[in-house]
Amino acid sequence: MGRRSDAREKILTSAQSLIELRGYSALGVAEICKAASVPKGSFYYFFESKEALALAVLDEHWTAQRTDWARVLQDDAEPLSRLRRLFEETEAGLRAGRQSCGTVSGCMFGNLTLELSNQTEPIRKRLQQIFDAQVEMVERVIAEAREREEVTVGDAREAARSVVAQLEGQVLFAKLYNDTQHLEGLWANCLSLLSARRPDEAAISS
Amino acid sequence: MGRRSDAREKILTSAQSLIELRGYSALGVAEICKAASVPKGSFYYFFESKEALALAVLDEHWTAQRTDWARVLQDDAEPLSRLRRLFEETEAGLRAGRQSCGTVSGCMFGNLTLELSNQTEPIRKRLQQIFDAQVEMVERVIAEAREREEVTVGDAREAARSVVAQLEGQVLFAKLYNDTQHLEGLWANCLSLLSARRPDEAAISS
Repeated sequence: MGRRSDAREKILTSAQSLIELRGYSALGVAEICKAASVPKGSFYYFFESKEALALAVLDEHWTAQRTDWARVLQDDAEPLSRLRRLFEETEAGLRAGRQSCGTVSGCMFGNLTLELSNQTEPIRKRLQQIFDAQVEMVERVIAEAREREEVTVGDAREAARSVVAQLEGQVLFAKLYNDTQHLEGLWANCLSLLSARRPDEAAISS
Repeated sequence: MGRRSDAREKILTSAQSLIELRGYSALGVAEICKAASVPKGSFYYFFESKEALALAVLDEHWTAQRTDWARVLQDDAEPLSRLRRLFEETEAGLRAGRQSCGTVSGCMFGNLTLELSNQTEPIRKRLQQIFDAQVEMVERVIAEAREREEVTVGDAREAARSVVAQLEGQVLFAKLYNDTQHLEGLWANCLSLLSARRPDEAAISS
């Protein structure tokens, strides 16, 4: 059973790397098993289909990313500083990925949303839950900033969705141009979207 | 030769529909030819590869969209009204698509950017040219609005890129939730990103 659990982990790790590099549709189960050095029979022991694997990859990736987002967004710093750190860490993560594998792979959730959400309802639903959770985490920070009169927004949820949309749009450009400098304007964009009072330091990147 | 030209057009039309529905990697040449009612030999007479077809589909789609964007963005209306119409027409187009085929297919350029830009350099380059051209068209309108002191932006090109990024991010959400209402906030977001003076009518959707 120990070896089988290893196999599940290996399949998940290989699938995540391959999906980040080449998307979902371009991959076959045989290729994933080969990359994981696991026999094809093991695959179907752990996953009933390629779709089931994709759902597990999404869950694993979101579990890790949610921990990162919570660490940044739920700490004791001032609300807008936390949002700023989220963008800085996102940019740093994509930059590190580019340095290690040569390409900006983008956001796995955004990638799979555009590739798959019209093709499989279970994956669409899972991605909706993930983006809902992201928006909710950002919304709480915006609501705090609003209480402190640091931002002027009517609907904090709509504002949070606009901020996450801006993040996804700029990550799309970072992937397209294979260049993370497109993310440098995110903080200034976020302040604009939130009609924030701009402290001097915030104006640097605008 | 007349029939052969028909065949090329049929292949392009079928490929565009299939790529909008299911992306690029999930399609095979045989499936495209079947949908186009064209023998496979014809395919390779017109296109040396599936990638060459994808480039032709991108060109055809951009030629049509560029005409639409130019009609809206280069007419005689006030600059911000033109931008607003661009968003309204984008939303109307996606809503019409949803009514006819049941799903919000999103933006083909955004879809293929996230699916393919790390996999084929010719497609990446073509998508870069298309997004550069979109950003340039929006930039010209923003520069006009800035001359009229209707917006306050430092770098009109960066501002245009942020507006197009917001559009792509909100279209991603429209596709994810299969619901075009996510595009309703675009105009208010755009005014925020441009630090625009907000006329009363502009505040409606904020």
